[in-house]
Amino acid sequence: FQYTKCKMDDYYAPGRNHLFVPGPVNIPEQVLRAMNRNNEDYRSPAIPAMTKVLLEDVKKIFKTITGTPFLIPTTGTGAWESALTNTLSPGDRIVSFLIGQFSLLWIDQMQRLNFNVDVIESDWGAGANLEVLGSKLAADTGHTIKAICIVHNETATGVTNNLAAVRKLLDHYQHPALFLVDGVSSICALDFRMDEWGVDVALTGSQKALSLPTGMGIVCASPKALEASKTSKSVRVFFDWKDYLKFYKMGTFWPYTPSIQLLYGLRTALDLLFEEGLDNVIERHSRLAKATRLAVEAWGLKNCTQKEEWFSDTVTAVVVPSYIDSSEIVRRGWKRYNLSLGLGLNKVAGKVFRIGHLGNLNELQLLGCLAGVEMILKDVGYPVKLGSGVAAACAFLQNTIPMIPSRI
Amino acid sequence: FQYTKCKMDDYYAPGRNHLFVPGPVNIPEQVLRAMNRNNEDYRSPAIPAMTKVLLEDVKKIFKTITGTPFLIPTTGTGAWESALTNTLSPGDRIVSFLIGQFSLLWIDQMQRLNFNVDVIESDWGAGANLEVLGSKLAADTGHTIKAICIVHNETATGVTNNLAAVRKLLDHYQHPALFLVDGVSSICALDFRMDEWGVDVALTGSQKALSLPTGMGIVCASPKALEASKTSKSVRVFFDWKDYLKFYKMGTFWPYTPSIQLLYGLRTALDLLFEEGLDNVIERHSRLAKATRLAVEAWGLKNCTQKEEWFSDTVTAVVVPSYIDSSEIVRRGWKRYNLSLGLGLNKVAGKVFRIGHLGNLNELQLLGCLAGVEMILKDVGYPVKLGSGVAAACAFLQNTIPMIPSRI
Amino acid sequence: FQYTKCKMDDYYAPGRNHLFVPGPVNIPEQVLRAMNRNNEDYRSPAIPAMTKVLLEDVKKIFKTITGTPFLIPTTGTGAWESALTNTLSPGDRIVSFLIGQFSLLWIDQMQRLNFNVDVIESDWGAGANLEVLGSKLAADTGHTIKAICIVHNETATGVTNNLAAVRKLLDHYQHPALFLVDGVSSICALDFRMDEWGVDVALTGSQKALSLPTGMGIVCASPKALEASKTSKSVRVFFDWKDYLKFYKMGTFWPYTPSIQLLYGLRTALDLLFEEGLDNVIERHSRLAKATRLAVEAWGLKNCTQKEEWFSDTVTAVVVPSYIDSSEIVRRGWKRYNLSLGLGLNKVAGKVFRIGHLGNLNELQLLGCLAGVEMILKDVGYPVKLGSGVAAACAFLQNTIPMIPSRI
Amino acid sequence: FQYTKCKMDDYYAPGRNHLFVPGPVNIPEQVLRAMNRNNEDYRSPAIPAMTKVLLEDVKKIFKTITGTPFLIPTTGTGAWESALTNTLSPGDRIVSFLIGQFSLLWIDQMQRLNFNVDVIESDWGAGANLEVLGSKLAADTGHTIKAICIVHNETATGVTNNLAAVRKLLDHYQHPALFLVDGVSSICALDFRMDEWGVDVALTGSQKALSLPTGMGIVCASPKALEASKTSKSVRVFFDWKDYLKFYKMGTFWPYTPSIQLLYGLRTALDLLFEEGLDNVIERHSRLAKATRLAVEAWGLKNCTQKEEWFSDTVTAVVVPSYIDSSEIVRRGWKRYNLSLGLGLNKVAGKVFRIGHLGNLNELQLLGCLAGVEMILKDVGYPVKLGSGVAAACAFLQNTIPMIPSRI
Repeated sequence: FQYTKCKMDDYYAPGRNHLFVPGPVNIPEQVLRAMNRNNEDYRSPAIPAMTKVLLEDVKKIFKTITGTPFLIPTTGTGAWESALTNTLSPGDRIVSFLIGQFSLLWIDQMQRLNFNVDVIESDWGAGANLEVLGSKLAADTGHTIKAICIVHNETATGVTNNLAAVRKLLDHYQHPALFLVDGVSSICALDFRMDEWGVDVALTGSQKALSLPTGMGIVCASPKALEASKTSKSVRVFFDWKDYLKFYKMGTFWPYTPSIQLLYGLRTALDLLFEEGLDNVIERHSRLAKATRLAVEAWGLKNCTQKEEWFSDTVTAVVVPSYIDSSEIVRRGWKRYNLSLGLGLNKVAGKVFRIGHLGNLNELQLLGCLAGVEMILKDVGYPVKLGSGVAAACAFLQNTIPMIPSRI
Repeated sequence: FQYTKCKMDDYYAPGRNHLFVPGPVNIPEQVLRAMNRNNEDYRSPAIPAMTKVLLEDVKKIFKTITGTPFLIPTTGTGAWESALTNTLSPGDRIVSFLIGQFSLLWIDQMQRLNFNVDVIESDWGAGANLEVLGSKLAADTGHTIKAICIVHNETATGVTNNLAAVRKLLDHYQHPALFLVDGVSSICALDFRMDEWGVDVALTGSQKALSLPTGMGIVCASPKALEASKTSKSVRVFFDWKDYLKFYKMGTFWPYTPSIQLLYGLRTALDLLFEEGLDNVIERHSRLAKATRLAVEAWGLKNCTQKEEWFSDTVTAVVVPSYIDSSEIVRRGWKRYNLSLGLGLNKVAGKVFRIGHLGNLNELQLLGCLAGVEMILKDVGYPVKLGSGVAAACAFLQNTIPMIPSRI
Repeated sequence: FQYTKCKMDDYYAPGRNHLFVPGPVNIPEQVLRAMNRNNEDYRSPAIPAMTKVLLEDVKKIFKTITGTPFLIPTTGTGAWESALTNTLSPGDRIVSFLIGQFSLLWIDQMQRLNFNVDVIESDWGAGANLEVLGSKLAADTGHTIKAICIVHNETATGVTNNLAAVRKLLDHYQHPALFLVDGVSSICALDFRMDEWGVDVALTGSQKALSLPTGMGIVCASPKALEASKTSKSVRVFFDWKDYLKFYKMGTFWPYTPSIQLLYGLRTALDLLFEEGLDNVIERHSRLAKATRLAVEAWGLKNCTQKEEWFSDTVTAVVVPSYIDSSEIVRRGWKRYNLSLGLGLNKVAGKVFRIGHLGNLNELQLLGCLAGVEMILKDVGYPVKLGSGVAAACAFLQNTIPMIPSRI
Repeated sequence: FQYTKCKMDDYYAPGRNHLFVPGPVNIPEQVLRAMNRNNEDYRSPAIPAMTKVLLEDVKKIFKTITGTPFLIPTTGTGAWESALTNTLSPGDRIVSFLIGQFSLLWIDQMQRLNFNVDVIESDWGAGANLEVLGSKLAADTGHTIKAICIVHNETATGVTNNLAAVRKLLDHYQHPALFLVDGVSSICALDFRMDEWGVDVALTGSQKALSLPTGMGIVCASPKALEASKTSKSVRVFFDWKDYLKFYKMGTFWPYTPSIQLLYGLRTALDLLFEEGLDNVIERHSRLAKATRLAVEAWGLKNCTQKEEWFSDTVTAVVVPSYIDSSEIVRRGWKRYNLSLGLGLNKVAGKVFRIGHLGNLNELQLLGCLAGVEMILKDVGYPVKLGSGVAAACAFLQNTIPMIPSRI
């Protein structure tokens, strides 16, 4: 007999991988445990009973009472398609904002789905131009605009848009357009208020601030969106809300097989969020983001986000000097420090690298990352003062980190 | 301090759940282990490298060399939509077979996607009527039929269709229609030969014979199907092969975030299949199915499948006497024996219950299930001779089970 | 890049391993999940808090209020040594019963620890000879006997001794000897009443009816045993209760590092036992054992246990005809059916094989095993009627299995 | 139905726990995966086959060819007892060094096991006084000293003793005393050479640098130690090497039930160590330790270790100013930062806190810890310059961290 030595990993490195891409993010041990299970019959009483409560509880992360959630076995891209095809018909005019790679991809999807997209473009690094939106709404007395589509948090540039202001504009002009929001890198991390802001469809993906594996697109529809779905002429089957609603009514909930593991994972992810308290979670994200920005400043580098009002609390895109290729920073993080950072995408490729600071994460994890970034910066020839970013971050954090409530 | 007692499970029962629904099926421990992991950056070199080999290896389960596989974060329903929308245009004439609930659902999808479906219906329990197909092909000298869509194994009735015969007909009439096959409850369990049978699109789902969690739809396209995808006018984005092909070319492989866990799970599932040998896997399914049918016969019950040529080796639908409600059998299995059986669906609701015998399963697991079914039958008033089905199954199995190669 | 194919298991076989050795036994998924975790600082407040409640709760499985439990990082053999060395001094006279391999090993340990062992031997298959014990107690007016040591359930032969009768004898003769009980294959499965039966030290191992991994020896001492430990002259350090008691008093509980994983595993194992109800657990073991014995009878084979009063509800040792080597049965189970049975040990090697039916196990799992044994018997040339044992077991079980309370 | 909300953890905190106690240490995901498995029959061919190779491979971590290893289901304390009782007889004279809490505990064990311990005491913070050893050896012409017992790395004070120098002295005086070494917090992390240094018994515990859960004491005996075990008169059973050797000879390897999970865990831990390369592992520990010491220096704090020659590469004990209670530092780490540091023990309680930097750990993890310590120091009133320690550590690390070989 010869025990077969097995190469454990093709890219093995000792210690933890420091995962700071803005998704997929770190999964807490509690969730890994909950998902470590065999399949089950999803037609037994157990799964519908569990689903019923999940659907109630998941509404809390959208801050909605009147919304109807759908837990779809798909990714954020599928959730986008679900939002659009259920509420709009081919040819419908959509106003959308192009401010970075993910808003670009969503707009591309809209166009390929045959909607008539009226694009409001900003510099990459700026937020949605709401003045232009105002003009368009003012001009649209005939209500040709059927929907406003906006990415709450543009993951490519670290820009957070002001959704309350969008709602204010719609109200001001008494415009009936649907308000569709990509909350993929915001929900469960940034302040999000579906009902208060009159959002008609909000959506997120499991692998972002929920800290689950990829595979569940969570879409939440307002009563107005549900109403729209009854008349939408977009062709759809897999993403059709009708099938879900039919099974909701029957109490079996699933038009097709869900991932048993993701259901238990979601249950646990929600339990953790509720145990910490959603407001505390948001506060934690704000704290980690502020610490990151202070480090960036201390390094003498620029935030890709142009104005403070747009600073994202889930991802920071850092601009590197022109003599440095930001991709080299990401590569080096992986090759030397077991640190995973986000690449610059498309227009900002080579120019920015991104630090994702969302999901189930704490301050010391972030500080390890920041220390790593400092060493990488030095590696690639940027004259950083080692320790400077960490010092700036710590100075802020040491004043603001709360005691852990369960341990006081 | 008070340790919080936690109700572990709302439906706790001691011992293993005996999972014999025809999907989702039992996940082997090796796969659970492989999936027990944190998220990773899918843009690091590790995931593309792994994906590249997975795409090569997954072709083996389709028995194709020329096919192009897509690993889509979706379910079987999404895989159907991917197959149809990438290869056909609205209004295209499809010939499809209605022989049970899953063929029905696929046809429903075809219609809602605006294809012109020419349905060939059989009794539930019978296979596809290939004579009618022959006539239609013969008559279709103008080649108005753009595709033949067939469910290889109808999970609702336990009917396996003869794909080689379909190909023979197409060849006989030199008909250029695309040949699209739902292999959801067949691939990795039944004999399936994509290239030899000239299948243009074949598809399966991760939670079936691959024995993974739900969440990956695996679609494989022939060169002819890929060619068709270039001109198909069906609206699609999430399911569009174009995006995959673009990323394949770039070597990054993923147009949107994959489930890291399912990738490692698939790697392991394939490793296990290849270690056992695909032909041995198919042989094992054949053995388990035969044993099940012998038990059914011994119980004096009828197989829902009308002829031996259609007997399914992955699921057996058992017809109960009219004085028994088959749903009561399923309920009782769950409530008393921790046994999960499949319900009768739609037309055969209340009339049949189903035993799924697919995936990573062995003989003694099946025999435990069969013994359970016997007790349930007695519970619900059917005069079964206890032990009779197990005896019949054992008589066959004891003659046919091979030694476990790794342990000889 | 070349993905390294990894031989998953050197002895891979499809489907579940059917684990029917009398320990280590099947671990329920809930326990595996609970143990799937990183290490923790065992000096933080969390572990002592958890331990405190565990020590209270673990007393329930011994049915003791006055006992003091010790959770020792060791096996049953170590638990034996802990029981003996803490309560007795070298040269002390012990009366012990030799009825099978495990009582033999314990006696061997007693002798090597320099106790003066007065052995009462029975045939392998018979229980402890309590008449002889009676005579010895009657004769021992000088109280030279310091302890009675008895294995509650002899795992090698499937013999359960009558502990209440032992206590009755001690009381009858007003004999002050300590009453030490090996409950390794009984506690959490058989009726065990530490306080009522006046047991002074009871012990078990985590890998038996608690259904955990190996590694925790659980020893419970009566006040009288604790008192004895103060004067025992046996040399001991690792197993010394004094160190535990010192740390209990300090509230930190651990004289050396415990297995964090086993603590969480134990927590879950107890939660599951309490959820099912300890009496229901014992009833389930009784039911599974009766079913097994009925199968053995139906096969025309003899139970190694000579009288019904000694029948064990956790393990059944089956005598094979002299022309069959029972080891071949065990080998064949493993090589052909992925079934793990217990070997015959020492005096009964080659003559008996053992079916362990303890721990977190249900009826259909057992029936799968019994069906497997039938096929093996046929394989090795025994003229069994296939299905006969399963039929006999089912006839009994179908009348006695209760509904699953959580699912009614 | 009401889904039971379950308090996930009584001491829940978001993000990873930063585990920097000097044991138990972080378990890598690969090991957690390997251990996530059901029990198995340890008498099947699989476990002996695996054990055989494990016993060969485990010798590599001791750097021995002639040694015989024992994998004992116990902790370090049990491993100590195994080392002593197998090689020595009651009354035997042992020379041992008292330099901190763990050497103290071992000496306490020696005394309670009735050996005649000749203690050479040093200040806590100093290493073993080898001059005194020299005198004793010189004086012991009658060879009354039967063994030299030394803790390689005193975990309480962060002191590493010079084993080569001990051997040199023994050789110089041609003294035949056995050389017994506690390698609990050194083996797999510090340079350790059993054969070269003529160590007779070396031992470690699974939860230290092997990065496994607690529960396996690994003891390795030289041929001379094995020879001594044949005549040792110490009473022992559970820890008796004889039983192991008997089962080694039989090829079944286990005198009692091993933890299946720890065996697979050990297999994986060794695979990871060998993949990284044992010398690289030691180099990594040296690097992390140096970085830690530079941070301590930058904070203006003193290392408890008095001289550089004794600096430990696995744990650093940091002396706090007298106006600070070091326990408060540890408490605060846990209560505010989810950071687990080591308490000061016994003589240095309240005076030092300890940073464990051993096991499967990387630089960014350590830097997160160091940043945390800085904030804690500020919390408790020590005037640290935030960022100073991290800066000093980074300055060193950025120059010395190698590229990850598998990722170049």
